[in-house]
Amino acid sequence: MPRVLVTGIAGFIGSHVADHCLRLGFEVVGADDLSGGFWRNVPAAARLVTGDVSDPAFVAQLWREHGPFDYVYHLAAYAAEGLSHHIRRFNYRHNLGATANLINEAVLHGTRHFVFTSSIAVYGAGQVPLREDTVPVPEDPYGIAKYAGELDLRAAQRVFGLPFTIFRPHNVYGERQNLSDPYRNVIGIFFNRCRTGQPLTVFGDGLQTRAFTHVDDVAPLIARAPLVPEAKNETFNVGADQPVRVLDLAREVAQALGLPARIEHLPARPEVVHAFADHSKVRRAFQPPAPIALPDGLRRTAAWSQTLTPAPPQRFSAIEVSHGLPPSWR
Amino acid sequence: MPRVLVTGIAGFIGSHVADHCLRLGFEVVGADDLSGGFWRNVPAAARLVTGDVSDPAFVAQLWREHGPFDYVYHLAAYAAEGLSHHIRRFNYRHNLGATANLINEAVLHGTRHFVFTSSIAVYGAGQVPLREDTVPVPEDPYGIAKYAGELDLRAAQRVFGLPFTIFRPHNVYGERQNLSDPYRNVIGIFFNRCRTGQPLTVFGDGLQTRAFTHVDDVAPLIARAPLVPEAKNETFNVGADQPVRVLDLAREVAQALGLPARIEHLPARPEVVHAFADHSKVRRAFQPPAPIALPDGLRRTAAWSQTLTPAPPQRFSAIEVSHGLPPSWR
Repeated sequence: MPRVLVTGIAGFIGSHVADHCLRLGFEVVGADDLSGGFWRNVPAAARLVTGDVSDPAFVAQLWREHGPFDYVYHLAAYAAEGLSHHIRRFNYRHNLGATANLINEAVLHGTRHFVFTSSIAVYGAGQVPLREDTVPVPEDPYGIAKYAGELDLRAAQRVFGLPFTIFRPHNVYGERQNLSDPYRNVIGIFFNRCRTGQPLTVFGDGLQTRAFTHVDDVAPLIARAPLVPEAKNETFNVGADQPVRVLDLAREVAQALGLPARIEHLPARPEVVHAFADHSKVRRAFQPPAPIALPDGLRRTAAWSQTLTPAPPQRFSAIEVSHGLPPSWR
Repeated sequence: MPRVLVTGIAGFIGSHVADHCLRLGFEVVGADDLSGGFWRNVPAAARLVTGDVSDPAFVAQLWREHGPFDYVYHLAAYAAEGLSHHIRRFNYRHNLGATANLINEAVLHGTRHFVFTSSIAVYGAGQVPLREDTVPVPEDPYGIAKYAGELDLRAAQRVFGLPFTIFRPHNVYGERQNLSDPYRNVIGIFFNRCRTGQPLTVFGDGLQTRAFTHVDDVAPLIARAPLVPEAKNETFNVGADQPVRVLDLAREVAQALGLPARIEHLPARPEVVHAFADHSKVRRAFQPPAPIALPDGLRRTAAWSQTLTPAPPQRFSAIEVSHGLPPSWR
């Protein structure tokens, strides 16, 4: 029975990956500092070790006391793209330094597969559709840290033979997502605003499109990666294909919650109008089942969200540079 | 009179950049933790503040007590490409975290120009000649950290309007270089081995070629960058064009020192046979004078080196992963 480490196990995607690892029969040790995750997300059958993987002493202790690990699933991150310009130092420590700590221990102790959850943010403002053979040029510190982590992992594979799989998910939503993070994830923000009686804010006309992915279409693939020969030392976009207008998304969220949709248009901001990624590579390697339709996924997320008391937005407390911070983030 | 900060002022290229800044009439504050540099390198007319720019508290204190700075020249780094696989954590902290700290303070205090010394290591094993419009794909943690720093600086320019110039020097040698660093810089290694009566080790047949650049062909350009309109928000390769066979270099070094050349061939290692970079962009922007010929530069370096007692190689003491470390690095 392989023993595996899941970092960020109390977080959104991490907790689902841990669930799927348990279903595959793995023994699961999870690490989380509970800065963005919740105790309630951690599967009962997993062992949670609380601590910060950006601290090398904690990572060494993880291996010493709970290792060695056959597979490492590294999902711990602070995933705030726009905010990352304002928290450079924190970003590189938590989104790259932590990855380097884990790669060091994985190499030292012969980990057989290192699964890294990167982000579509690595691509930068490239042409769509985003394909894995596009050379990324990330444009914000979050995307830069994730891309540096990818390159670092590839270097560790070449020099030390550490096998890896990299995933670049996009716009993932679903049960256990953090609904009080004001900096990211439009679905989470819409859920929170709708449930607290606030209007759903849409930038510009709301006709920009995104494809939204239910976590159950992503987490099982991440968990299976070490068992899929075609995934060894490969990088995959992962997410939905079906484009949805942000305006329609706002209405769908309200409908799933059975609440009226009050929509407020704010001035347009610079953003890609139609962002979409190519997923043919991940389909070839993993042959996933048909994806969960957005209304179904939103209904499940709504049912889950109603078990929670709506929480006020959690502001990040250690802003390093506040120049140009949008008013809603102050 | 502009006040400028030079990080790594006690180091090789940093001390020369500080000299040229003083010649341009700037008031120079230098920062260095003296981990790889020497007091003796710091120009008498500059003020040295000792400390580690990877420590955010030290960087904030630099600005508070000695700033604001009109221009920042960031040259502090631990530049060991091959060793960086074995010191990932240290590498990202010192070669990227430090850059992020300095960019934060530069943005907060309105620095007018940020000059960053990157490296040819960002390119990875691309096609030669290396040109600035090649999209880099770095392959070792040192190159990854430098490239992430470049991308971070570009993000700071786009979001906060911080003007920058990036230099990617290669194979720089000359007076004040560290002659006891066993991990990098073939000229420094040859000088040290020749002076201590050891054979000059050449990998393979020694017919691989590199172009070697005297520091006086690099440092004046770096110092002038904020004054050159064509250099604003641009990236430049900088270095020599003339290829030299490593075997011939060994003989030239011995000749410059007036010592016999004892050459020892070691098994070939995987490396680019003929590495060279295109420098037409830096010539267009800076119109530098004719470069210093290698025999002249080596004679100057030899004369300087004879003022020093040869020192034993300084080993890096905090190796994180020793798997596969070459015997000569242990």
